[in-house]
Amino acid sequence: MAVRSGMPLTAAAPSRSFASDNAAGAHPAVIEAVVAANAGHALAYGEDAHTARCEAAFSELFDADVVTRLTFNGTGANVAALATLMASLRGPHHAVVCSSWAHINIDETAAPERILGTKLIDLPAEDAKVTPAQLRVVGADLGAVHHAQPGVLSMTQPTELGTLYTAPEIAALCDTAHELGMLVHLDGARIANATASLGGTREALRSFTVDAGVDAVSFGGTKNGLLGADAVVFLNREAAVGSEYVRKQVTQLPSKMRFLAAQFNAVLADDLWLCLGEHSNTMAQLLHDRVAVLPGVEVGPSPAVNSIYPALPPSIIKPLQAWSFFWDWDVTKHQVRWMTAWDTTIEDVEAFVAGVAELAGR
Amino acid sequence: MAVRSGMPLTAAAPSRSFASDNAAGAHPAVIEAVVAANAGHALAYGEDAHTARCEAAFSELFDADVVTRLTFNGTGANVAALATLMASLRGPHHAVVCSSWAHINIDETAAPERILGTKLIDLPAEDAKVTPAQLRVVGADLGAVHHAQPGVLSMTQPTELGTLYTAPEIAALCDTAHELGMLVHLDGARIANATASLGGTREALRSFTVDAGVDAVSFGGTKNGLLGADAVVFLNREAAVGSEYVRKQVTQLPSKMRFLAAQFNAVLADDLWLCLGEHSNTMAQLLHDRVAVLPGVEVGPSPAVNSIYPALPPSIIKPLQAWSFFWDWDVTKHQVRWMTAWDTTIEDVEAFVAGVAELAGR
Amino acid sequence: MAVRSGMPLTAAAPSRSFASDNAAGAHPAVIEAVVAANAGHALAYGEDAHTARCEAAFSELFDADVVTRLTFNGTGANVAALATLMASLRGPHHAVVCSSWAHINIDETAAPERILGTKLIDLPAEDAKVTPAQLRVVGADLGAVHHAQPGVLSMTQPTELGTLYTAPEIAALCDTAHELGMLVHLDGARIANATASLGGTREALRSFTVDAGVDAVSFGGTKNGLLGADAVVFLNREAAVGSEYVRKQVTQLPSKMRFLAAQFNAVLADDLWLCLGEHSNTMAQLLHDRVAVLPGVEVGPSPAVNSIYPALPPSIIKPLQAWSFFWDWDVTKHQVRWMTAWDTTIEDVEAFVAGVAELAGR
Amino acid sequence: MAVRSGMPLTAAAPSRSFASDNAAGAHPAVIEAVVAANAGHALAYGEDAHTARCEAAFSELFDADVVTRLTFNGTGANVAALATLMASLRGPHHAVVCSSWAHINIDETAAPERILGTKLIDLPAEDAKVTPAQLRVVGADLGAVHHAQPGVLSMTQPTELGTLYTAPEIAALCDTAHELGMLVHLDGARIANATASLGGTREALRSFTVDAGVDAVSFGGTKNGLLGADAVVFLNREAAVGSEYVRKQVTQLPSKMRFLAAQFNAVLADDLWLCLGEHSNTMAQLLHDRVAVLPGVEVGPSPAVNSIYPALPPSIIKPLQAWSFFWDWDVTKHQVRWMTAWDTTIEDVEAFVAGVAELAGR
Repeated sequence: MAVRSGMPLTAAAPSRSFASDNAAGAHPAVIEAVVAANAGHALAYGEDAHTARCEAAFSELFDADVVTRLTFNGTGANVAALATLMASLRGPHHAVVCSSWAHINIDETAAPERILGTKLIDLPAEDAKVTPAQLRVVGADLGAVHHAQPGVLSMTQPTELGTLYTAPEIAALCDTAHELGMLVHLDGARIANATASLGGTREALRSFTVDAGVDAVSFGGTKNGLLGADAVVFLNREAAVGSEYVRKQVTQLPSKMRFLAAQFNAVLADDLWLCLGEHSNTMAQLLHDRVAVLPGVEVGPSPAVNSIYPALPPSIIKPLQAWSFFWDWDVTKHQVRWMTAWDTTIEDVEAFVAGVAELAGR
Repeated sequence: MAVRSGMPLTAAAPSRSFASDNAAGAHPAVIEAVVAANAGHALAYGEDAHTARCEAAFSELFDADVVTRLTFNGTGANVAALATLMASLRGPHHAVVCSSWAHINIDETAAPERILGTKLIDLPAEDAKVTPAQLRVVGADLGAVHHAQPGVLSMTQPTELGTLYTAPEIAALCDTAHELGMLVHLDGARIANATASLGGTREALRSFTVDAGVDAVSFGGTKNGLLGADAVVFLNREAAVGSEYVRKQVTQLPSKMRFLAAQFNAVLADDLWLCLGEHSNTMAQLLHDRVAVLPGVEVGPSPAVNSIYPALPPSIIKPLQAWSFFWDWDVTKHQVRWMTAWDTTIEDVEAFVAGVAELAGR
Repeated sequence: MAVRSGMPLTAAAPSRSFASDNAAGAHPAVIEAVVAANAGHALAYGEDAHTARCEAAFSELFDADVVTRLTFNGTGANVAALATLMASLRGPHHAVVCSSWAHINIDETAAPERILGTKLIDLPAEDAKVTPAQLRVVGADLGAVHHAQPGVLSMTQPTELGTLYTAPEIAALCDTAHELGMLVHLDGARIANATASLGGTREALRSFTVDAGVDAVSFGGTKNGLLGADAVVFLNREAAVGSEYVRKQVTQLPSKMRFLAAQFNAVLADDLWLCLGEHSNTMAQLLHDRVAVLPGVEVGPSPAVNSIYPALPPSIIKPLQAWSFFWDWDVTKHQVRWMTAWDTTIEDVEAFVAGVAELAGR
Repeated sequence: MAVRSGMPLTAAAPSRSFASDNAAGAHPAVIEAVVAANAGHALAYGEDAHTARCEAAFSELFDADVVTRLTFNGTGANVAALATLMASLRGPHHAVVCSSWAHINIDETAAPERILGTKLIDLPAEDAKVTPAQLRVVGADLGAVHHAQPGVLSMTQPTELGTLYTAPEIAALCDTAHELGMLVHLDGARIANATASLGGTREALRSFTVDAGVDAVSFGGTKNGLLGADAVVFLNREAAVGSEYVRKQVTQLPSKMRFLAAQFNAVLADDLWLCLGEHSNTMAQLLHDRVAVLPGVEVGPSPAVNSIYPALPPSIIKPLQAWSFFWDWDVTKHQVRWMTAWDTTIEDVEAFVAGVAELAGR
């Protein structure tokens, strides 16, 4: 068996990987927009027409007079958002409350602690979703001088485990947070996938953001077909005070901002961002359904967004990775992560499934 | 007079502005490289062929086994460089020493203090150049427990005032700094312009960096024809320890790094970066020479790089800015800044000079 | 019942409280030493004879050439110790690993995050003791650029729950930490109580500190009969580099240091510190045994050090607190904390028990 | 000459040094108060009667409903004060503006930058006094996203050079700062000396603090006869929001606070603090007048407070320091600092002058 799984796969590897949506390039419309934006001179740091258009587009998207700050990447958006919200709270003794799975807690090399100087209070959550009850427990520390004071709730939508909060769940969390005097941040690095899964319309987006009471959103672009751009969108203008300075201070002020704005303008028009999110979701669903029937593959529940976390026969993992790379998820359970992207094709899925089937069937 | 200067200019404004080299877009070769890099999937966070090629290109450029960390922008490069160097010094009590004109001191909204938690000791310098003697005075604080300990010397080349250190000047500063146990950072946001002015060859670059003893360089790209990319180049590998983590922590790790690498690859090949730097220097020289003869315009010395700081008749400044925008420099002296870019043409210069001449001559 | 428990207690309240060892004053020998140290002038910032004597006393205590830095309080000692150890690790991307119950994690209002700029990775632990296995799990993040890198292990001895690590347990944790490239800090805010419980000799102290491989200890004094003084003792001299600057930077350099040194000198001589620790342990044991037999009082296991955490009939808690104040521990379990101090007398215990008995018996 | 100055001095050294007011011990009333406060138990962290009395005493002193936060030392008071004021300003992009001579700028090992994460904008000032005109120049950066925004003005009274602001000068600075949207901090590490020099009454104190518009004062005690205690007094209650948490976070919350409060209570009663400040001022004046007539001693202007900075014949400095230690001030000018304390006697001055005279006369 070990020998046979070590044999070269006869199936041809897919031309696109299932490693991450970060492995995909940019959508042609994004490239075209960047090329078009390259005509002539434009003032730096956002004093250009593309950025003005982008800001208007976000206000239209959320149907609200939002404050938009473009950033280079998702960590930058999170840090800029949190630093701005923390500044509203009058005091460095406030903490950010999040799930223990939160990207800001695990995957940002302590950027929030370093740059904000702030404690992250991470709550255990099997599905990576915090609950109002947990928030109330943390809230019991309010007023006690020895404890960091809960200041900002940060949720991720979809979560780092591919799960989703419903709009009412987020509304309940916002209500609880606001009652406790806290502000609310939503890390939407893959917000397009969440929106596609929760209805696929602008109304769906608004239902779990602006209508639910979220104060600031990290609106992901890079993972959804952009070359590289994310945005902090302050749905609560009052909570945006100082955000232009904070963005600069956390190193996230792009000088040639027109090129970031143009990328967003390309996908916000005609809701291309939603189409791309929906497409990668669909491809993950297809992949899930196709491998579910393979022997030895425990595929888990149907994906809410664009990733699945199957458990595989241990012996086939490394040969599969050598053939078409993807990441381990939980090595103790032989669990891996397969993620689709905006450009994953049915052919990619079929080719990938063929390889898994060949190894699983040996 | 006020009325006449308020009259519309008959001269046509140049098609490119003299506000900043940040106002220019990207060189066509850069755009082409980004488009080409968009084919297929590539692993994120620098595990791609473009980044590998870029790292090799920087080692070749400096003729040394350097460590290169691509960043989104110049502030990011500076902060990542300084944070890494500071980490070598064993202790948060070390300070960064720089000129009072330094970009890190004035123009980064206290990003270094916030992110490094470090004091900047800023030395007065009329020409924005620090001297070994100044460094020795600061060095007298070494060993005194009440004073932040000088840890890193950060110079800017060319300086924020458009002046240049000679290679021997930088070597002397490096020697002094190293004697005092300090490390040396060079902020080269416009390093192409400096190199062009100091000889225009790779040897010239090396003379004031690796040969002079600089430990780490912020190698600017954005201001020299890229869409947006800068790099930290550690010429001293030992001082680069931890830099991959630090870059991530300071929010400067690009996920789709291939697109930043491709931009640098486009300009490092055939030394396009040097040509672009030389061109903007030449245009600044031309602009200087053409306005030097205009009445009421005090143009100052011949520019070393791509900016001039003329004093103008007060009444013509606002009309000129309304016609073709540029920034004030020192309002108390009616001094402005005119800056050329990689794409400034002779026609742009002539058109701009015509406008100045028309207003100055009224 | 509610009415009856609301009736005034006939028992006289003890003259000393069971709220905290912080509620006790200073031992007479400490006061005498401070008064004696007040003769004449002495150079500030530790350049005095009392401080020199104190430093020698700590080296003698640990039978090692240690580096001692006196601080004002325990949070100051912890922050100074951790900041110094982190500085040894070359990089702001290192994290402090501790129990989720750790004082540094819960009770210092995020001072470590603010001042170090560092993530605390807090491990769940029912008894507030971390294990080598937990440390190895965290160690799996070593080398991954997206994760804060485990840098310092901080244990508390006795723990915040009044439990103790054995000397071999600490040695095993130190071995694991050092294997992973980490350094080890011991928060000994009540180290006298731990030492008394683990043998009551200097050898006992050494067994779980210097002999076990701990790099730095926060050596508590304030909670053990001092007016106010704690110390960072670096058992690993190499890990103390920069500590004199760090102490100043974190605001913990006393100018009139002789008065802090004199306090420690008073208790280190003739091992008064150990006697005081042993005494408060004994009083807690007595209190435990006397209330164990009272109806409705669930007293839990015999105390290892100087605190017990009994569950009480809910209705008697507030009246008892009104009569002789103490703190709630876990209100959901009607659990309170009773803590003895260096000056708690048998009479105090008997008086307190009489009040509990009166209310519990109604 | 060198030989003769190397000969042992025949004059007997004074029994108290002129090195610093930090070299003095505590006033007997302070010791008595601490001993008295040591009776029985008291709740920690300020929940005791001594602290309540101290807070009332400060309100009475300033004739205003102030918020007082006791701290261990002056650096702690400054950092706690500034961190609290900065928190009022909504945003980490605000800077502290101070004189380049400021203790927070030079003598706190970058504690403000580390703990606040904030830039200090230090203004050149020969007499260590900033001016409204300087503040307005800095204020020109307000609104520019690339520059740290002036947020808090911190003055020192008396300054680090022994000079004084008049009450109208401070009022003018406060007015200017407030106009610019800034808050005002006064570092009064030696505020007793300043008050004594400016009238010697509580009215004098109020004239340059609460009446002038200062928002928060670091009220020094340690240098004026205390064992060790300083206080942050928020004259503007609104600017004190969060100060109880901030004090804890910056490691400056004393657990046995009664012992710090008792020290202040001892000196605030009957205005002993003022007597002590006046006395050391008088001794400095006497010292100044006595050495002014000695050959080769350039004694400079009459002291405003308790230090003089004479230039001495170079050859006598080291022998004098060996005989009765004091600090160099500016070695390039052979300038030294002589400082008196609350306990300096006329005999000390005469003895010291005799030594100087003996060496200067050789």
